[in-house]
This record gives sequence, C-alpha cells and structure tokens, in this order.
Amino acid sequence: MSATALAAAIRARQLPAAEAVDAALARIAAANPRLNAFTAITAERARAEAAAVDAALAAGQDPGPLAGVPIAVKNLFDIAGMATLAGSSIRRGAPPAAADAFALARLRSAGAILVGATNMDEFAFGFTTENDHDGPTRNPHDLARVAGGSSGGSAAAVAAGLVPIALGTDTNGSIRVPAALCGIWGLKPTYGRLSRRGAHLFSASLDHIGPLAGSLDDLALAYDVMQGRDPEDPVQQDRPAEPVSGLAEAGIAGLRIAIASGHFAEGGQPACFAAMETAAAALGATTRIAPPLAAEGRAAALLITLAEGGNLHLPDLRARAGAYDPLTRDRFLGGALLPAAWLIQAQRVRAAWQRAARAVFADWDLLLTPTTPFAAPPIGTAMIDIDGRMVPARPQLGWFTQPISAIGLPALSVPMAGPDGLPLGVQLIAPPWREDLLFRAAGALQRAGIAACPQPKDPF
Amino acid sequence: MSATALAAAIRARQLPAAEAVDAALARIAAANPRLNAFTAITAERARAEAAAVDAALAAGQDPGPLAGVPIAVKNLFDIAGMATLAGSSIRRGAPPAAADAFALARLRSAGAILVGATNMDEFAFGFTTENDHDGPTRNPHDLARVAGGSSGGSAAAVAAGLVPIALGTDTNGSIRVPAALCGIWGLKPTYGRLSRRGAHLFSASLDHIGPLAGSLDDLALAYDVMQGRDPEDPVQQDRPAEPVSGLAEAGIAGLRIAIASGHFAEGGQPACFAAMETAAAALGATTRIAPPLAAEGRAAALLITLAEGGNLHLPDLRARAGAYDPLTRDRFLGGALLPAAWLIQAQRVRAAWQRAARAVFADWDLLLTPTTPFAAPPIGTAMIDIDGRMVPARPQLGWFTQPISAIGLPALSVPMAGPDGLPLGVQLIAPPWREDLLFRAAGALQRAGIAACPQPKDPF
Repeated sequence: MSATALAAAIRARQLPAAEAVDAALARIAAANPRLNAFTAITAERARAEAAAVDAALAAGQDPGPLAGVPIAVKNLFDIAGMATLAGSSIRRGAPPAAADAFALARLRSAGAILVGATNMDEFAFGFTTENDHDGPTRNPHDLARVAGGSSGGSAAAVAAGLVPIALGTDTNGSIRVPAALCGIWGLKPTYGRLSRRGAHLFSASLDHIGPLAGSLDDLALAYDVMQGRDPEDPVQQDRPAEPVSGLAEAGIAGLRIAIASGHFAEGGQPACFAAMETAAAALGATTRIAPPLAAEGRAAALLITLAEGGNLHLPDLRARAGAYDPLTRDRFLGGALLPAAWLIQAQRVRAAWQRAARAVFADWDLLLTPTTPFAAPPIGTAMIDIDGRMVPARPQLGWFTQPISAIGLPALSVPMAGPDGLPLGVQLIAPPWREDLLFRAAGALQRAGIAACPQPKDPF
Repeated sequence: MSATALAAAIRARQLPAAEAVDAALARIAAANPRLNAFTAITAERARAEAAAVDAALAAGQDPGPLAGVPIAVKNLFDIAGMATLAGSSIRRGAPPAAADAFALARLRSAGAILVGATNMDEFAFGFTTENDHDGPTRNPHDLARVAGGSSGGSAAAVAAGLVPIALGTDTNGSIRVPAALCGIWGLKPTYGRLSRRGAHLFSASLDHIGPLAGSLDDLALAYDVMQGRDPEDPVQQDRPAEPVSGLAEAGIAGLRIAIASGHFAEGGQPACFAAMETAAAALGATTRIAPPLAAEGRAAALLITLAEGGNLHLPDLRARAGAYDPLTRDRFLGGALLPAAWLIQAQRVRAAWQRAARAVFADWDLLLTPTTPFAAPPIGTAMIDIDGRMVPARPQLGWFTQPISAIGLPALSVPMAGPDGLPLGVQLIAPPWREDLLFRAAGALQRAGIAACPQPKDPF
C-alpha cells in the first residue's frame, strides 16, 4: 500500500497506526534475512510512535500527511539514541546521536514512523551496497544481484514493499542508481534544497539527501515534507518551499524536452538506451543535445569526491586504515594523497561544466538519460561488457548520474521495465530549483503506462 | 592635478590632451629613474590617443569623463601589442596581447590615455614590489623604502603625481597595502564586481582588480567607469552598475560604524592603531567588534593562494623553477606540493569565516582597521618588531587586508599621516556589494581633514 493510501486509511481511523507498523515490522522480520536491507530495526520506537499517532487521532488531532506511515533511513542519518554507522565498522563505537537528523525529524513531525536503518556502501562510497561489515544488500528482483548503492538498503526495502518511503543520500548517484536497479522512484533534489543536518557527510560539496519511494505521489509527498528551512544548515539555500505534490497530474504541455547525447549516448548497454528511448517517445522528445564537458565533469566529480572524502577521513586513515572496507580503503587513501593542484583543476572543470549545462538549459526544460548503464549485476561483479570492452562494473554504474550531481542539478529516476525481468531507470534532469518539472514529466510517463515499479517475482 | 580637474580642463578645451600627455611623459621620464615605478612607457600609443581625443573635441564630440587623463596599469594587465609580463622573466617571450584588458578598454573608452605599465612583485605574490628582475619600486616619500606591493609601481606613480589614476590587483591586499604605504587612495571592490578579463591571474578565487588614485573623486570615477558588465568574465557577477561618484558628499548619517578588534587589534605597531583611532573618532565609531575566525581566515587565504598559485604555475615550476624570482619561487613550489586535504580545510575555514563576517554585518554597516601594521619599511627589510617580537616583515604587511579579500568584502584604504613623515592607511570594510558605504565614510574622513594624500618631501 502506498504511503498516501496508508496515511489516508490511518487518518480516517480505518486502520490503526499500531497495526500498520506491526505489519511493517513483521514484513521486515520475514524478508530481511534474505534481503539484508536493514542493519537496525527500531521496533520499540516505532511502536511508541504508532501509539502516539493513534492517541492523537483519538483525541481529534491530525498527526500529518504521513500519519502512521512506516519509513526507513539509510544508516548514515542520525537516529536519536543510536550510533550513526554510515556503513562502517569504525563508527560502531561512536556515541549515540543526540537527535534525529533534520530530514527524519521533518518526516516524523508529519506523522511518519521510523522502523529501521538501512544498509549502504561504507561511508556511501560505492554504487552496489556490497558492504564488507554488514554483507551485501540483495536485489528483491533477483537475490543473487546487487541492489545498487550506496542507498541500496533503502531501495531494496522499498522495492520489496517493506516500507513505502525511505531516505537516501546521493553524492554521485547513490539515490538514483539503487532506485533504478531496484525498480522504484528516486529523487536527488537541487544541491542545497534539503537540509543535510544530521546526515553523515561524505563529500560535502557534492552531498545531497533525498527520498526513494514506491510511487510517484509518495516521492512528492516525502520530498515536500522535508523541504522545511533549516537555519542551522549553512549549505541549504534560503529558498521558500516549493511543493511538488500534485504536479504529476499537471502534464507536460509546453515543456521543451531533449535527449542528452554525447557522453550520455555512450558507456551503457543497449537495453538502457532502449528504455530511455521508450520514455523519450512517450514525452515527444526527439532532439538530441550533447552538453559539452559532461565527461570532464564526471572526472572532476571523482577527483572532488576523492579529495573531500580523503580529507574527511584523514585522521582515521592515519590511525586505522585497516578498519575500512576493502572496497573503499584504497580510494580513501588515494584521495587523501591527492595534490591540491588536481583538486583546483577539478573545481575549475566543474565550474566550466556548470556554465555549459546552464547554457543548455537556456533552451531546454528537461534532459533525458538512462539512469544506469546496465541492470543490476550479480553480487561480486568486477568487470562488465560495454560495447565489447570489459570495464570495471562498479564505477561504471555512475556514468550517467555523476555529471549531474557534480553541478547540483535536480534529477529523478523513473522506474522502467528492463531486460530479463530486471528493472532499469530513466533519469530526468532539470535546471536548478526546478524539481516541479521533474514531477510533471514523471507523471506523464506514469500516465503513459511505461513507468511503473515492477513487482518482484517472489513477494516479500 | 586630479583626473577630474584635468578632464574638465581638457573637455573645456582649456588644455589640449596632447599637452597633458606630454607633461605626464616628461614627469615619468624625469622621475622614473629614481622611483622605478614604470617597467614600460607607451609614449607612442599615448600620443596617438591624445591626438584622437583632441580631434574628437575639435569635432564637437565628448571623449568621456576621463578625456585626456594619463593613466598607468600594473604590468599584469594586457596591453594590446605588448607581452604581459606580470612581473616575471618567464613571460618576457610571451606573445603580445591581442587586445587591452577589459578594465583598460573601459577606461580608454571614457577618454583615459595609457602612458605605461608599472612594476609589481613577480606574479603579484608579494607586498613590497622588490622585484628581482626589474628591481624594487621606491617609495616617493623615502626612496630607501618600499612602495608596498604587489601593485607598488602603480601606487608610487600616483603618489609621485606622475599619473592621477592607476590600476592594480588585490589578492591578499595588493591594492590596499601599497596605497597605504604610498599615502594614496585604493579600492578593492567586492569579489566579482569588476571584470578580470585580460588581467593575468594569480589565485583565481581571490583575485580582484581595482583603482588607485590621488583623490577620492578620481577613485570613484575610475571605479565607476570600470563597472561595465562583461559577459566573457564568468566570475563577474551579473550586477547592475551602481555608481559611487558623488557619494563622498553624502555623509554618514545613520551608518553604524564599528572598530574591528580581536585579530585586528593585534599584529601592528602603535602608530597604525593610532591612525585608525583618529579616523574612528572622526566617524564617531566607538564600539569594538571582534569578528570570529578572522585569523583563521587569513591562514586560509594563504593556503588557498599557495594552492591556486602553485597549480597555475605547475608547468613552469616543473620546467624552469630557476627562472622565478627568489622571493616567490619557494612559495610557488610549496604551493604546488600542498595536499588537497589542506586546501579543502582552508576552503571550509574560508566559508565559516564568511558566515561569521556576514553575521557581524547584520548589525554593522562598516568596520575599521588599519590597512597595514606599519609604515613603509626600508627596502630589503626581512624582519620587523611587533610588540617586542621580531616577525617576518613581508607577510606581516597583509595582516589586516588578507582576511578581508579572502571573503571578497569591498574595502577602501584611506590615506593618513603616519610617523616620521611616512603615510599610513585606514581600511574601511563594507558588506558585499556596498562600495557606496565605503565612499560615504571616506568622504567624511576627507571633509574632517584627517584623510589626505601627503605630498612627498621631494617633488617629482
């Protein structure tokens, strides 16, 4: 059941929140041993909050638009009273968080109920959620395959129907990639739109938070609830909240939609381009635009991620590099050893790519790309075939998403049917602060019947 | 004669531009062997432009508010047909510039006439203009002393009355420091206000251009002429020009002016604070405000300068480090070897200092500091006494200016009388884009009779 429908039933007192939460906890208990989506279950807190929601309703109060809706957060969001692991072993001894992360607090204040924290790549540095400490999260559509990452636990939990909404973070694609590989909706808002307070950072100039959801309406609702202004987050821009709920119905009349080519027409398997072409046809997009400097922008994003991540982790890298996940350790060490001159060049390239993209959006409202270059690979896949050449699979997953987060543009991954029953995603990209355009086009794809969250073959 | 008065006489056809330019060239020819302010004289171009101004006037056209006014530019500004040296030997074989720098073209289009290029620290990396290739520029108030830097040639040329207006650049104080040590007016506008096109960069995130002048009216006039929008400079903000000419008469009624303390109450000799207190008394400023993180912001400015400068010079440092000035070589090499993690920390500190300063300016319109911690030292001075401790003299000159340019605030150095007949400067600091406030306060100091450009003992 969608969050929107669930909250409606609970607010109408047709279903007690306690019952909705118990059902979610039961689903998680049954499914998580197979999926490994959750690293912590917050059953006690969830039951207490459900009771509070039911009590409020009984007293005639409105707990909010997410009343009684079970949600999950990637385990890098602060949860009051728990250590924030960020997928690491290093933080297992960290002091418990004093308060919920700002975004979680917003969702809670709208009635949502946290049922647990989800698995991720260590410190968010990966696209597959093959976590050495907690084990890999498995894709609900094929348990032998990855869920994508780094917000893979959140994506798998939503795709398996354990919760309708979960939070992720996206530095180079970490919301969009797992959303695509698990066949759900994922939104990376404009850089600075949502407060990051209480989210463990990875690469501060690139980090975004955002929702993953099993329906487009739920995605919009969760995003709207989190839009509140946070004076304590210096990165969050002083923008008024601009609600997108309901915009999925608004249609795309007048929107200038183009297919991104150049870098975005390479680097993927045929199926990902086929899905994107299907979406483009449904949106009437025929013009192909090659934004200059996109490939260079992706390279810049990698260097900036390495340098900022390496700086953040410098004390731990010096003291206990062996405690890092083997999949992240060498990259963090390499990042810590980068010369400043490389970072400056990367920052210059990012600025030039940003100007080039701005020029493209002077003529276009939306660009389309695939979200990932291929569907979910088997767990442990090191190399993958792209146009007859074997390339490293894990970094290749960010081919289409990294250039976009590098310059903070809002992007939404639309779930599509892919090959062999596996989902794929199409990435919609808008100019800064125009999340509304993303929802209008996503709604059109939903109405056209080509965007949908495929059901896992084996129900959870 | 001031530029304003000179242009009025020329526009009124009381004085031919050709005569004004010949007089300037004669003054330069006589004085420059002693001052070493100019590294190139553009006599041929100047005479041709003067003839064009006189012809325009004869035809009844108005050449503009700087009609026939001789000006000079620091030798890092492009001058069409000449190699842009930026104080180096490395660029002596560079191809000639195809066009004038944007700022110079603006001044020229207002009638100003370029008479030459001025000496500077190599690649602008210094506060003293002790250039190993071109020799030191000498202070017009005492030829044994430095003129300050890195725009020292421009400051000395103005202070000696050779030209009424000259252009400089300011990355950490390179307009304000020589303006103070030579006893003239200097303006570093808000970061992004004036186009830097055609100015050889040093540290791109900190570089500003601006005018130095022998009168406050001339400073305002030169600044206003240069405010034009340049679509080809990506750093220049898309701000409308906001003229400041005439604002020196506007008074300071209602302005909230404070004395900066904390970092800004240390690091200088008593005379610099005495001059600042005189100015504060004249402006009615009594409250002392210690902006947090100013000292840390200065350290951040140094690291960012080193890293950005080191990156810019990396190819030359690899190929021919020996060709650099001994006073810059080791610093550029050190900057090129900085790790990215240090730069990231410096950028974070700069952002935090920027937020802290913004909070101060929520309550105050202007802050006052000394411009430099001491008057012009003798050429070759390595160490200087600050509160009984000997410290390196050259970097100490940026104590008060570096924190301000680090966060792009507009600042104006007001000339004051200092000890032993040597000038000093008081730095006025405003919030971003409020150059108008600087001119209002500077005008008040001028009317109070305590700000003035002292005449050199030996006229030039």
